[in-house]
Amino acid sequence: MVLARRKFRRLPRHIGVIPDGNRRWAVNQGLAKESGYEKGLEPGLMLYELCLELGINELTFYGFTQDNTKRPAIQRKAFQQACVEGVQLLCHRDASLLVVGDTSSPMFPPELLPYTQRHTFGRDLMKLNFLVNYGWLWDLQYAIKAHGPDLLNNGKLMNFIASKDISRIDLIVRWGDRRRLSGFLPVQSIYADFYVVEDLWPDFKPEHFYQALRWYEAQDVTLGG
Amino acid sequence: MVLARRKFRRLPRHIGVIPDGNRRWAVNQGLAKESGYEKGLEPGLMLYELCLELGINELTFYGFTQDNTKRPAIQRKAFQQACVEGVQLLCHRDASLLVVGDTSSPMFPPELLPYTQRHTFGRDLMKLNFLVNYGWLWDLQYAIKAHGPDLLNNGKLMNFIASKDISRIDLIVRWGDRRRLSGFLPVQSIYADFYVVEDLWPDFKPEHFYQALRWYEAQDVTLGG
Repeated sequence: MVLARRKFRRLPRHIGVIPDGNRRWAVNQGLAKESGYEKGLEPGLMLYELCLELGINELTFYGFTQDNTKRPAIQRKAFQQACVEGVQLLCHRDASLLVVGDTSSPMFPPELLPYTQRHTFGRDLMKLNFLVNYGWLWDLQYAIKAHGPDLLNNGKLMNFIASKDISRIDLIVRWGDRRRLSGFLPVQSIYADFYVVEDLWPDFKPEHFYQALRWYEAQDVTLGG
Repeated sequence: MVLARRKFRRLPRHIGVIPDGNRRWAVNQGLAKESGYEKGLEPGLMLYELCLELGINELTFYGFTQDNTKRPAIQRKAFQQACVEGVQLLCHRDASLLVVGDTSSPMFPPELLPYTQRHTFGRDLMKLNFLVNYGWLWDLQYAIKAHGPDLLNNGKLMNFIASKDISRIDLIVRWGDRRRLSGFLPVQSIYADFYVVEDLWPDFKPEHFYQALRWYEAQDVTLGG
């Protein structure tokens, strides 16, 4: 771990990952769109291991959103299943795991309910967050719906949003060439540097991630100041 | 106008502009940092005219933020003055103008108070918004501070945020090579495509803008679906 860290002068504390391009990858392979999602599991595991090796403090994966659930049911079931498997793949590793998303909807996979409170499995070497049936508007409005009177007394919206246990993000890496946040944690992404990988997520290579980190270490951090 | 529109298959309805790099430009010229801001006025006027020619519906300029006001006073006064002049330069053109920002602070330039309600000067050909002493947290928390009980009754945060009269943004163009939003309208930027120009804002060229539009027309619009 020490050797790997030495390669970088400055590393992000918290990395957000938008693993986009699974359907495009499947189409390029002549497969049905929905078969692309399971090809995103292995890259997720690899990325987690790279982050652990570098001593990254927090890693957040964009699983699926409430917007995404409007897609055809066959696709929806495939990405729901991939999210369940992704969490199960990582849940006994050295990390404290949290799943954030709207559990009040049937779109939320019931298998993931046990993970909606942060739990540490193995050693507590990293915070690992998954957004599952997440919605940016749901996240913000949760403060009003679930904590209205407290919110009014306290006055601080950030204390009551649904994702309040996810910290500020330093670097967002999006695979699949699209340069947009698509509703990814608007509050935590406010000051994040945004790196886009042209290749699709199932074509993940460690070199993509290292390139993002090399780019990040050359950026300044001002937090708007 | 018709000829210019024909050049593009698909244009953004609403463009957000982050005019960054004024201080770096000044330093590169051997000038004091604060002298860079006034060099951003002419580019702003040019960009407004290009948008008008193309029939863009709405244009939002990132003036300065509450974060920015922590900079040295000589810089702060220079960007406050540039914002006042920028609004005055555009306020009698063919647009309906709105300034959004925290007017309750002494950092808000009093000359701009008359513009905090939308007014149409000349013909109403475009919505033109300036963020002045804006803060992303101020914007969201405004809903609680200014409209708490109404917010709780109504339940819809978006109806009460300070920037509610600014619509969803389709394309954000940031000059000065930094790939981050820096607190720019988090709610309206949720689905925006994000184009970064390497050159600094005072080195604005119409070609930068046309390149952003060419890139934009090749993107798909899914709104997360």
